[in-house]
Amino acid sequence: MTQPFRTLLDLCRRRGFLYQSAEIYGGLRGAYDYGPLGVEMKKNILNSWWQRHVYNRDDVVGLDTSILTPHPVLKASGHVDEFTDLLVDCALTKERFRPDKAPPLSLDKNGHIPITAPSKETALAWKKAIEDQFAPNTKVTVEGNRILLFVDHIVQPDQRGQGGKIVFQMLDESSPLELNYHGYVEPDTNSPFLTDSRPFNLMFKTFLDPIDPIDRVIQTTMNKPNDSKTSVREAVDQVLKPSTVFLRPETAQGVFVNFEQVVRTMKTKPPFGIAQVGKSFRNEIRLEHGIFRTPEFEQLELEFFVAPWEAKHYFKYWRKERYNWWLEHATNPEKFRQRDHESDEMAHYATGCTDVEYLYPWGWGEVEGVAHRGNYDLTQHIKNTGANFEISEEKPALSQEVKESGEGEAELIPTETPARYIPHVVESSCGLNRAMLAYLCDAFHQIEDGKGKPPRNVLKLHPRLSPIKCAVMPLTGKDEFLPLTKKVAKSLRRKGWYTVIESQKLKIGKRYYRHDEIGTPWCVTVDYQSLEDDTVTIRDRDTGLQERVNWKDVQTIIGEKLMEPEDLD
Amino acid sequence: MTQPFRTLLDLCRRRGFLYQSAEIYGGLRGAYDYGPLGVEMKKNILNSWWQRHVYNRDDVVGLDTSILTPHPVLKASGHVDEFTDLLVDCALTKERFRPDKAPPLSLDKNGHIPITAPSKETALAWKKAIEDQFAPNTKVTVEGNRILLFVDHIVQPDQRGQGGKIVFQMLDESSPLELNYHGYVEPDTNSPFLTDSRPFNLMFKTFLDPIDPIDRVIQTTMNKPNDSKTSVREAVDQVLKPSTVFLRPETAQGVFVNFEQVVRTMKTKPPFGIAQVGKSFRNEIRLEHGIFRTPEFEQLELEFFVAPWEAKHYFKYWRKERYNWWLEHATNPEKFRQRDHESDEMAHYATGCTDVEYLYPWGWGEVEGVAHRGNYDLTQHIKNTGANFEISEEKPALSQEVKESGEGEAELIPTETPARYIPHVVESSCGLNRAMLAYLCDAFHQIEDGKGKPPRNVLKLHPRLSPIKCAVMPLTGKDEFLPLTKKVAKSLRRKGWYTVIESQKLKIGKRYYRHDEIGTPWCVTVDYQSLEDDTVTIRDRDTGLQERVNWKDVQTIIGEKLMEPEDLD
Repeated sequence: MTQPFRTLLDLCRRRGFLYQSAEIYGGLRGAYDYGPLGVEMKKNILNSWWQRHVYNRDDVVGLDTSILTPHPVLKASGHVDEFTDLLVDCALTKERFRPDKAPPLSLDKNGHIPITAPSKETALAWKKAIEDQFAPNTKVTVEGNRILLFVDHIVQPDQRGQGGKIVFQMLDESSPLELNYHGYVEPDTNSPFLTDSRPFNLMFKTFLDPIDPIDRVIQTTMNKPNDSKTSVREAVDQVLKPSTVFLRPETAQGVFVNFEQVVRTMKTKPPFGIAQVGKSFRNEIRLEHGIFRTPEFEQLELEFFVAPWEAKHYFKYWRKERYNWWLEHATNPEKFRQRDHESDEMAHYATGCTDVEYLYPWGWGEVEGVAHRGNYDLTQHIKNTGANFEISEEKPALSQEVKESGEGEAELIPTETPARYIPHVVESSCGLNRAMLAYLCDAFHQIEDGKGKPPRNVLKLHPRLSPIKCAVMPLTGKDEFLPLTKKVAKSLRRKGWYTVIESQKLKIGKRYYRHDEIGTPWCVTVDYQSLEDDTVTIRDRDTGLQERVNWKDVQTIIGEKLMEPEDLD
Repeated sequence: MTQPFRTLLDLCRRRGFLYQSAEIYGGLRGAYDYGPLGVEMKKNILNSWWQRHVYNRDDVVGLDTSILTPHPVLKASGHVDEFTDLLVDCALTKERFRPDKAPPLSLDKNGHIPITAPSKETALAWKKAIEDQFAPNTKVTVEGNRILLFVDHIVQPDQRGQGGKIVFQMLDESSPLELNYHGYVEPDTNSPFLTDSRPFNLMFKTFLDPIDPIDRVIQTTMNKPNDSKTSVREAVDQVLKPSTVFLRPETAQGVFVNFEQVVRTMKTKPPFGIAQVGKSFRNEIRLEHGIFRTPEFEQLELEFFVAPWEAKHYFKYWRKERYNWWLEHATNPEKFRQRDHESDEMAHYATGCTDVEYLYPWGWGEVEGVAHRGNYDLTQHIKNTGANFEISEEKPALSQEVKESGEGEAELIPTETPARYIPHVVESSCGLNRAMLAYLCDAFHQIEDGKGKPPRNVLKLHPRLSPIKCAVMPLTGKDEFLPLTKKVAKSLRRKGWYTVIESQKLKIGKRYYRHDEIGTPWCVTVDYQSLEDDTVTIRDRDTGLQERVNWKDVQTIIGEKLMEPEDLD
């Protein structure tokens, strides 16, 4: 972790952006709570997205569907069968990991395998386990917390991870011990003592029934104590199936199963979109980088339904539209990029996908995927329910607007005969946590004031994303400043902007700096002159410059700066 | 169900407020999805609440904590042990129900017990089951779908439901059959053939671990097939405990466990509040009245932390404050009332509670509880973690503001010596679904236009709650009206208001009526005069009156009407 990133995370904890969830109970693995400033920033990202893609357009509506999702929906969508990670256990360290992200074996300069234990004691215990259990009679040494396995030679596996092996040096003349090697080791320790990989479903299951399902399983299976584990498993599934529900792994399926209802009730048809924001859940095995990958996360998803012959056009359109949204809120646009997926990294439903990536302190990471999902999902739900998701076009022509926009190439010359089709879907799917983390990293600056002082922190957040829009401050703690301070704050609050009154007993400069650190774009100060001529100063976070204006104009000045740009369609 | 209520529910489905969740899959019991208009109305209620209680005040901050909650948190809070319903199964009908809400036995005019089956076939099957199993040798007849049990006499139970019995008439001389009677029957059928009541926990459980817990249970317990059910249950709990998490049953606990972090990072202390909005989950056995009681629901919770000697004062303060919020958005304030809880209906943590109730079509129902939770929760979390939730007051005085407000009575004469205390909590907890349902019922009006036409529907929603703030309409479908229509819509959208362009090929009056039905407060029409002098008409939903103004003034006029009242503190 870089020092500035550590300073940023400390800032987030110290100033109320992020807390470890249930910290007083030792924390819940991978779960975070948003503090008073974090919750505002999160809402601002969400609102900016909703404003742009729902309110500013004529062709997108919102939706808010249930988190609890019945089994058949996710069976049809492929999530029950295919939404899995391959996982491997390390027999030595007991760690579980994803083999596709694990590194290959590393050797020391003498060609031996170093295994790094967390402590000297563990190293000794592991050495004993290797000698007793995993590689008896091979040459193993230990130095401090480092174990060395002496290797005779290594056969690299083929591209599919087959055929590889590690051949050990033996202590005696017995034939050399061979260990299967699939091309990866346990990431933290370099241990090669692994189980075969097994698929695990990533969805959280629960039961829509107040009877504890475990009790019912016991009641049922205890009557057949002599069955095999497989038949018990079948019996258990039988008992649980009627009440099994999943926590949705994506908000998108709620949109797909409501497709026909939205079309009917909103009297709309393709091209049009449905936007949804909400929590999704994935039982991720490997949690990374704070809020970057967490089991509970919020998604901003837009499913845009189009005629098949318009799909390529709209994929390009949304690819560009969404990238622009990211750039517009960025301080360092060069740290955001687009990356087209290779065909082997796409999800089971996608036929084209572009990620928006941000250059996090640990490297490029996905913040959003824009995917061409084809008509996979709608077709699956039709197959399983007989739902009518077909659209009849009287004239299957590209709409006038699309033709004229100059976006993308012409894709298909539509005929003039009526067409029926199942809409294709272009999806934009963005993780709110990741967006927040990206914009925090993007906004974080340190300013050296010189004179040997430690640098001070500034969050140069886009004003629409800043948790607090304005801090109104009396120059000193004297009572005489308070009435006007309150009046100014009230005038801003009536506009719906989060405004705080900052009357701490700190010098005004310190109070400005405290607000620079949390990204407040404007500080308004009520001073002696204010009491005489009703003017106040507005200080700009990024320039540090102050402007003196009548207090009644503050809301207009800030309002102009917070509004969406004039030239949006 | 009353006819107007049925019409309202139909309106909600037809116009995109509410859909049955996963309807194409037959629906998920008790789960609802919010359609394009529903999601906006829900957001508006939420925003109005947040604006009032967070943005407009100096003493409340927001928080957003994890839905997944570890076992120890809810063990400490009492939810693992006490958050239960007693449930009874009917052996005859297989229905499960809450005995505290179930009716007493009803008898026909001859003193016999009528049981109503859903069909004649079921009645015959039930009669056979009664004769074979539940009350052999007693006199039972069946007529259509109605079974009659012939009763000799009934002994009423005492107040605790003990000692009651039903004594049946026998077909022969054998001694009369007696059945325990606890004072209630299965609500739908009047069946008295019940199991004893059993406690069931209302929380949803899941497992933070991608290994299917059931597989692990099978692995473990299959090794001990000869154990008793109890010991298997213990073994199972042992296996599952490390990864068991709950879906939170209330947002409040997330606030309590973060208390110290918020105090520290926000440099605040009592009296102050923490507001949280989010999903909670309860495995309710009995789902009622559409969205009134659902397993997945959204809460608006405010936990206000105060010194013990201020608790009574703030309980009264929030009781009033919250009631006023309800009244302010109401069309029929007389349908909202406050009701103080009897001591036997309070939750396990509460020492005082007032409900806000709305007169739904089926009677008064809770929309919010304002509770004095004492320091129960904080004390429990201190006990279980050693967290430092104690506050030191230098001068334990009522703040100046509180003294002067004239609210409530003086409660305690504070001493001038320093005090240490664990804060007491005054909670306001409101269900967003219920709020939405209440305001929909409250806003729903039918207007008779006479001339034998069916009445038309109007939703007289408070403008801040209306899904769509403004519909901008070209007078006809002619292209010449479109540029100005778009300009007006854009000027309103830049303000962040949900504005639609309504260019359907309907007469303007029909378009007005369509928007009356979904509660849009203002319709702006671009007509021939608009093209000459830049004026448009604004039509008011409730009066039907139109005002002609310059199009550039529309945003100011609507802005004034949407703003919070001027006189709020």
